[in-house]
Amino acid sequence: MMDWTIGVVLTGVLGIVFAIWKAMFIKKQEPGNEKMVKIGKAISEGAMAFLKREYYYLGIFVVLIAVLIGIFISHFTAIAFVFGALFSAIAGFVGMKISVLANLRTANAAREGLTKALTIAFSSGNVMGFTVASLGLIGLAVLFRMFGNADQIDILSGFAMGASSIALFARVGGGIYTKGADVGADLVGKVEQGIPEDDPRNPAVIADNVGDNVGDIAGMGADLYESYVGSMVATMTLAFFSPELFKTEAAVYNAALLPLIIAAAGLISSLVSTFFVKTSDPKKVHSTLSNGLMISSVISIVAFYFILNNMFDKDVAWKLFFSVISGLIAGFMIGKITEYYTDSHYGPTQSIAKSSQTGAATNIISGLANGMYSCGFPVIIVCGVIYVAYSNAGLYGIALSAIGMLATTAMTVSVDAYGPVADNAGGIAEMSGLPSDVRKITDKLDSVGNTTAAIGKGFAISSAAVTALALFSSYTQKVEITALDISQPNVLIGLFIGAMLPFIFCAITMKAVGKTAESMIIEVRRQFKEITGIMEGKADPQYGKCVDIATKESLKLMILPGVAAVVIPVLVGMWDKYTLGGLLVGTMVSSFLLAIFMANAGGSWDNAKKFIEEGNHGGKGSEAHKAAVVGDTVGDPFKDTSGPSLNILMKLMSIVALVFAALFK
Amino acid sequence: MMDWTIGVVLTGVLGIVFAIWKAMFIKKQEPGNEKMVKIGKAISEGAMAFLKREYYYLGIFVVLIAVLIGIFISHFTAIAFVFGALFSAIAGFVGMKISVLANLRTANAAREGLTKALTIAFSSGNVMGFTVASLGLIGLAVLFRMFGNADQIDILSGFAMGASSIALFARVGGGIYTKGADVGADLVGKVEQGIPEDDPRNPAVIADNVGDNVGDIAGMGADLYESYVGSMVATMTLAFFSPELFKTEAAVYNAALLPLIIAAAGLISSLVSTFFVKTSDPKKVHSTLSNGLMISSVISIVAFYFILNNMFDKDVAWKLFFSVISGLIAGFMIGKITEYYTDSHYGPTQSIAKSSQTGAATNIISGLANGMYSCGFPVIIVCGVIYVAYSNAGLYGIALSAIGMLATTAMTVSVDAYGPVADNAGGIAEMSGLPSDVRKITDKLDSVGNTTAAIGKGFAISSAAVTALALFSSYTQKVEITALDISQPNVLIGLFIGAMLPFIFCAITMKAVGKTAESMIIEVRRQFKEITGIMEGKADPQYGKCVDIATKESLKLMILPGVAAVVIPVLVGMWDKYTLGGLLVGTMVSSFLLAIFMANAGGSWDNAKKFIEEGNHGGKGSEAHKAAVVGDTVGDPFKDTSGPSLNILMKLMSIVALVFAALFK
Repeated sequence: MMDWTIGVVLTGVLGIVFAIWKAMFIKKQEPGNEKMVKIGKAISEGAMAFLKREYYYLGIFVVLIAVLIGIFISHFTAIAFVFGALFSAIAGFVGMKISVLANLRTANAAREGLTKALTIAFSSGNVMGFTVASLGLIGLAVLFRMFGNADQIDILSGFAMGASSIALFARVGGGIYTKGADVGADLVGKVEQGIPEDDPRNPAVIADNVGDNVGDIAGMGADLYESYVGSMVATMTLAFFSPELFKTEAAVYNAALLPLIIAAAGLISSLVSTFFVKTSDPKKVHSTLSNGLMISSVISIVAFYFILNNMFDKDVAWKLFFSVISGLIAGFMIGKITEYYTDSHYGPTQSIAKSSQTGAATNIISGLANGMYSCGFPVIIVCGVIYVAYSNAGLYGIALSAIGMLATTAMTVSVDAYGPVADNAGGIAEMSGLPSDVRKITDKLDSVGNTTAAIGKGFAISSAAVTALALFSSYTQKVEITALDISQPNVLIGLFIGAMLPFIFCAITMKAVGKTAESMIIEVRRQFKEITGIMEGKADPQYGKCVDIATKESLKLMILPGVAAVVIPVLVGMWDKYTLGGLLVGTMVSSFLLAIFMANAGGSWDNAKKFIEEGNHGGKGSEAHKAAVVGDTVGDPFKDTSGPSLNILMKLMSIVALVFAALFK
Repeated sequence: MMDWTIGVVLTGVLGIVFAIWKAMFIKKQEPGNEKMVKIGKAISEGAMAFLKREYYYLGIFVVLIAVLIGIFISHFTAIAFVFGALFSAIAGFVGMKISVLANLRTANAAREGLTKALTIAFSSGNVMGFTVASLGLIGLAVLFRMFGNADQIDILSGFAMGASSIALFARVGGGIYTKGADVGADLVGKVEQGIPEDDPRNPAVIADNVGDNVGDIAGMGADLYESYVGSMVATMTLAFFSPELFKTEAAVYNAALLPLIIAAAGLISSLVSTFFVKTSDPKKVHSTLSNGLMISSVISIVAFYFILNNMFDKDVAWKLFFSVISGLIAGFMIGKITEYYTDSHYGPTQSIAKSSQTGAATNIISGLANGMYSCGFPVIIVCGVIYVAYSNAGLYGIALSAIGMLATTAMTVSVDAYGPVADNAGGIAEMSGLPSDVRKITDKLDSVGNTTAAIGKGFAISSAAVTALALFSSYTQKVEITALDISQPNVLIGLFIGAMLPFIFCAITMKAVGKTAESMIIEVRRQFKEITGIMEGKADPQYGKCVDIATKESLKLMILPGVAAVVIPVLVGMWDKYTLGGLLVGTMVSSFLLAIFMANAGGSWDNAKKFIEEGNHGGKGSEAHKAAVVGDTVGDPFKDTSGPSLNILMKLMSIVALVFAALFK
């Protein structure tokens, strides 16, 4: 048995080596001409300035929480918490550092053609994806080696809560930052001064670029890392509460170990599949990425079959197999559904574009209705997973389905993080005045990136939901809730309040984007007024100031919702553990629905605008286009700030409940 | 004991007499000049054409459902169902008939001054309010006299389901009609032809006017009638399941009778308070209406105290008293909170107006965020009611709190239905070219009406939520669910799907408004093209055609969601009664949150636009105003179609579950 955990750690090390190899590959590429290097330096400095300040606040937050955990729960849990946070912070740092390098090099490589540009952008995704998965795997395997028994397994939940804390800062703070900077830059640059997007004369342009790295790469990475780690911890915990399924001590141990083994197999499958992502045909960029995901899934399924039959009796193995693959298939299906509702090749987005012809109001109504419609199938699919997984393997099965969904996280993050790199490469090509055929290649990569980003969002939401569900199930077992009776007023009150919190959370984060944008606007206006020669390109704007203001604002504005997400479950739990149970379910259901609604409404508005820009309904500059721009702007905080923040909310609240369970008994 | 039910019936008769007296008062007022009478006739014909077609579809629907109930449940229940529907249909017919008369007479009376105009508009509200309450009371009292025992009390749920069916048509069909006509009229009239609102040259203008009567008066009336009747039936049912509270047979009988007595007392209090609604000072219109509501509440509270002490032992009486007044106070508080979030005297709406300066997108984001924020306190208040009512008197207490909230329904509907009458009076004044000082008076009445309408919406939503909760509680008792364990997958799946349904329901109704508006636009364009001389005022447009098209479209488009709301609970319940329990809770919580979000976002967009029109941020015609118009248009289906439809969804699904409970055991 000892061999297994060592095997998992070695797999993690292999992943790290792969990530280093990819990082070195990126580093040795040509960064481009002098102007590009200068821009790249500004973005890099901005990104690091954001991370530095974020990690400063994070440091304080982590130390405070660690002390509380140390006092009220246990020292080991506190230490695990610190390591969970630290590993995620390292993954975020590495991912950002490399993606900033890759931005530049992708733009430069696009001068030579598509193949190399795609390879560099995708390699940057690999660095993020494999660092995230490998560090999660190594951390949990080591902790499991030390504390993998019924009495000490709780300690591992500290690690998951550490991951959640970073995700909170990266997703919520990063989300506010990226959209605040984006909206601020657009309103002064495009609207007031009439200069194009990505124009280096705009003082906020670097902040906007930094935001893409901060929000879309580091934020998504931390979010999936949290799901990855959280679902494993939940599964391990539930292994010790499933006596009807695992009858011997050895079987229980294997069940607790299983998530690590499955995740390790998923990591190797992901690694193999990366070698299939290669094309020189612009039309095949999307399909080659999809195939990569598909290959990693197929290899995983085969591996799962052999692993389960090796570790468990045949009948149990089949039950677990169905649970695992139900999650994997569900993740895939929800991705496809997201694509249907947000891609301009399909009816829903086209009908939003069509309704833009009668103005902004009909565009908005149409987008909101589309987002609401799109909640239907994902809910049914998640219910299907709950049904299949539970009827096969009880609560443990539900948790295991989350593992199945997240096993190929390394590949999912790779595909997802590739998009923003391509997007930024386009921005750099624009800013540094590269020829228009370069921009065409980056645009092609970017447009595929938009679709993969939308799919990634759907995947992130559903994995967050099943992870939250798994963590909630662990919570009920830990606090010995045998029945959570919703017809009792205490549970019902919890449910009502829990369902209400995501609405308030969204309201706060949407307002925060507005406030951050406002501060940016004031600063940009000041620079245009006080620094003479910006508009003529004779004087450089102070990019750093804008980065700094957006950083300060966004991190300041995330403190209130962040603290609330940690404090509320603890207070409610101390009042009544059943109310807390209701609260967690309410938040989970409501967050899931709102997150899908917001992500898909936002995604389809964005693509409806692009569809019009391709020349439909009057094309760029038409009345329909103006209306579509309104939808796109509303969609920005929807899909990149408020929506994704709900992923964190539902997981963080559940993990806090699990970590502090000892206080609620 | 027999005396009590006779007393209740007599109270109902008193209410009817009062309504007839008020109707005769309205009828004998001067209808105005020839032009006004002509317009009034067109509106009246349009409204009756809508009702006729609506009642035709309704007739088919009611007969079909009655047959099903007769076959699967019982003949008596089927008969009660038919009467419940019939009484609501009569109330709707009478209310519409009178409000159409009152539109004209209010406009004409405004030529002489405020006092009389207010009296007429408010009297019209009285007719609707007292007809609704009295018919509900009489119907239930007679049925209770016949079937008020443990074995037959189920029959009364048929009456409530009848009320629900009408509410479905009136609120959903009416809601689609009113906003489809409104948006269609505006887009062609204001935007394409550049003629003002309420211009008689616009062929859709009468349809728009009819819509205000159909949606805002008949819809609201049917909605509150449904809550009124539904909460009484739920309370009666629960009286037979509360042995710890009501220990003797006499006490149980009194407990089942109690909702009728309380409602009768509320009716009398409402009647008394109407005499206090009178003012000649334009500044006091709002306060005189508020005072009316306050007076009816205070009288009711005193009456409740004596009633309860007369009917129950002292300790039980106190417990019931706290339950009743918790609902009454909550309804009042939620009204006030709604006012805060939607009235332009307060920060939230002003900040939406402010953010309109930076364009439509920021106006939309700001309005959505405001709507989401506004969910906080109503949820906490409802949770407070659940806590107080349950801890005093269990599930029976929760149902009783709904009775407390709804006891003064006659007065609430009066205040609420007054608004659209004033609004239409303004429209008629405009269309018939009355002098501008007349319009000033109707505008003042209308602006107060907007606030009372917003408050009424908040009240309708919260009363729908507590009614749904009471019906759900009765359902759990009827099907003998002792614990509805949400950590079980079947319940959880129900919860997820239940919470998702309101999103789909909103999407469908929003799209339906768009489609109806589209059909209207095509027809209006046709008339402008084919009928020469419309624009010069030389030829009359074919108003009837527009009314007809909007009627057909809206009723056609409500069939799918309407049937789904009835069929889904039955199918789910036949599969598993626990899943249905989860489904009902999910729908209730999610509907409540979405309904508040949509009503308050819509209300605040509307008033932000009006705030700008008063001269703020550049006033009418400014860029800020244009942006605010976008928000107002998005808000229309939010607050008048999709949001209110959710009130019906949550109640209808619960009442269907209760009526068909016998099939699920």
